[in-house]
Amino acid sequence: MHIAVLAGDGIGQEIMVEAVRVLEALDLPGLRLDHADVGGVAYRKHGHPLPPETLDLAKTADAVLFGAVGDPELDGLRRELRVESAILGLRKELQLFANLRPANAFAGLENLSGLKPEIASAIDLLIVRELTGDVYFGEKGQRQTEDGLRQGYDVMAYDESEIARIAHVAFKAAQGRKGKLCSVDKANVLQTSVLWRAVVEEVAAEYPDVELSHMYVDNAAMQLVRNPGQFDVIVTGNLFGDILSDQASMCVGSIGLLASASLGEGTKGQYEPIHGSAPDIAGQGIANPMAMILSAAMMLRHSFADETNAQRIEKAVSTVLADGVLGHDLGGSASTSAIGDAVVAAV
Amino acid sequence: MHIAVLAGDGIGQEIMVEAVRVLEALDLPGLRLDHADVGGVAYRKHGHPLPPETLDLAKTADAVLFGAVGDPELDGLRRELRVESAILGLRKELQLFANLRPANAFAGLENLSGLKPEIASAIDLLIVRELTGDVYFGEKGQRQTEDGLRQGYDVMAYDESEIARIAHVAFKAAQGRKGKLCSVDKANVLQTSVLWRAVVEEVAAEYPDVELSHMYVDNAAMQLVRNPGQFDVIVTGNLFGDILSDQASMCVGSIGLLASASLGEGTKGQYEPIHGSAPDIAGQGIANPMAMILSAAMMLRHSFADETNAQRIEKAVSTVLADGVLGHDLGGSASTSAIGDAVVAAV
Ligand SMILES: CC(C)[C@H](C(=O)O)[C@@H](O)C(=O)O
Ligand SMILES: CC(C)[C@H](C(=O)O)[C@@H](O)C(=O)O
Repeated sequence: MHIAVLAGDGIGQEIMVEAVRVLEALDLPGLRLDHADVGGVAYRKHGHPLPPETLDLAKTADAVLFGAVGDPELDGLRRELRVESAILGLRKELQLFANLRPANAFAGLENLSGLKPEIASAIDLLIVRELTGDVYFGEKGQRQTEDGLRQGYDVMAYDESEIARIAHVAFKAAQGRKGKLCSVDKANVLQTSVLWRAVVEEVAAEYPDVELSHMYVDNAAMQLVRNPGQFDVIVTGNLFGDILSDQASMCVGSIGLLASASLGEGTKGQYEPIHGSAPDIAGQGIANPMAMILSAAMMLRHSFADETNAQRIEKAVSTVLADGVLGHDLGGSASTSAIGDAVVAAV
Repeated sequence: MHIAVLAGDGIGQEIMVEAVRVLEALDLPGLRLDHADVGGVAYRKHGHPLPPETLDLAKTADAVLFGAVGDPELDGLRRELRVESAILGLRKELQLFANLRPANAFAGLENLSGLKPEIASAIDLLIVRELTGDVYFGEKGQRQTEDGLRQGYDVMAYDESEIARIAHVAFKAAQGRKGKLCSVDKANVLQTSVLWRAVVEEVAAEYPDVELSHMYVDNAAMQLVRNPGQFDVIVTGNLFGDILSDQASMCVGSIGLLASASLGEGTKGQYEPIHGSAPDIAGQGIANPMAMILSAAMMLRHSFADETNAQRIEKAVSTVLADGVLGHDLGGSASTSAIGDAVVAAV
């Protein structure tokens, strides 16, 4: 059970401390935690946001526990040295093509959503976002048009194997949930989406027990506001998934509680909170470590098939929340370490 | 004052009747209304959703009043014969590069939003969406990869002139509003967005009175749920604008009240409700014509510089709404024609 611990920037450092404490409290056999730098902190120490040592560790470890990266002071750096290149580099190098983003209401916390409580409380969905293709990784650059004008371009593309493998992940996820899958695309405009839809339909033949529907991305953005409770699993490409998963998280409201998993073909995965490095509150001991702790639970489930301990963590988190131990982001006043203490005591 | 009236499919026909009645009630000098078919109805009659006669009329008229297109029975047709090709064809042929989508709360109707009333009531924003470029109109198709796999692809691109002209529209719109402009892109990933951001910054030099900010599209999708009241004018590309403008409309809730304008270089424009052809309620006389009527007001303002009559219509609509003459979509029971009658009486 070899875990690469990449805490990263800002509150990433503080919340990781608590997640590690929770893991250690579980007495997991053979638990080995190796720390490495990533993001702005890595750039400052080693000149690159994803130094070779870090990438090596991530590659050899069984799983990556990732905090958050982002350092506003380094925004001016050229692209390859910015934190985004660490994020995208890890996804590509580890071939983490499937991003699982559960968004579900937490009882008693519906009020934190911008949506009406009766709408927010019905949210229980999983977004399966493709993570290593699409317009993110196609050919891109700046060029000149025939008229001598500057032009920026990015090629959006998916081939059938990329679509099929993410579709399989999504259909399987739907089988383990309510059996409903909604594939989101823009097939009325994009040829990439036309193929996407065709391949998802082909894969559907293997999952007769899953009810498949298709929705255009503009409509999906509307439905996530109007009635997000209608969704079970959503599968979509990298770009639409980026937008819709963030929108869905905000519909839940309490983004300090939402975790994510990025998975490849085997059991290797990267697990991280959906929130960022929050430099404005870093170092004050007030960051909410819950999403980080829940990321560790996802890790136990997906990379180590340890459902028992995953649920132990998740139940402990629910208990602590129900006891009213809430972080500042949730309207409470519990410190980062107080929340960590409470979860450690509860597991 | 030569207007091409393209009612289209489904409820497009019914709501257009009322908008025309309102225009006729204004005694506009030289008003000439020429009707033509578009969408599914045009396909059925002439074999194409945008027949040459219709395109010619749209080109020669001073403005296009557009109802809605969409006919589920024709979804199986090949791409060039589907209604989308009429929508995209008109935009491209008339060079309507600037789509203005106001989204604002209507007093007393905040409750129709999925957002909490205190959040929804603060919405007063304008999305300026680029409409003739981006991944919509780049090279696209299906091809084979080196490994013999099917691949779908679409090229996203913007050149500096396309970005600059939409930026000018947005800065000017901001000058006429609260002086705040937020440009939405994905410059941390897309080269198209890198140029977008650079050109918007260049254009900003000419508008020192406008406060410019930049936001990533995933964050914008979150902020539209969390606190849409923070936005005044948003400018963005075709694809992001498609998603965000629909999301913003749904945040308002009452999409039966939202109109849009698509403008080119001169005064020519196309004006239409943001809702669709709603085949499920077509022909029952219960469609809400308000968005269509408000589209006519936008037409008077933008294509005919007739602010007086634009405001006459808008005030009449407000009065009628305040009087509780509400369509079924707004929780009322007024018929299409009853609402039209009320607005005609009020102008
Ligand atoms: C930082 C950025 C490159 C990244 C993305 O767009 O994928 C982020 O928004 C995310 O969703 O993880
Ligand atoms: C029908 C479709 C091509 C169109 C678009 O994506 O532009 C529609 O969604 C819109 O926003 O007008």
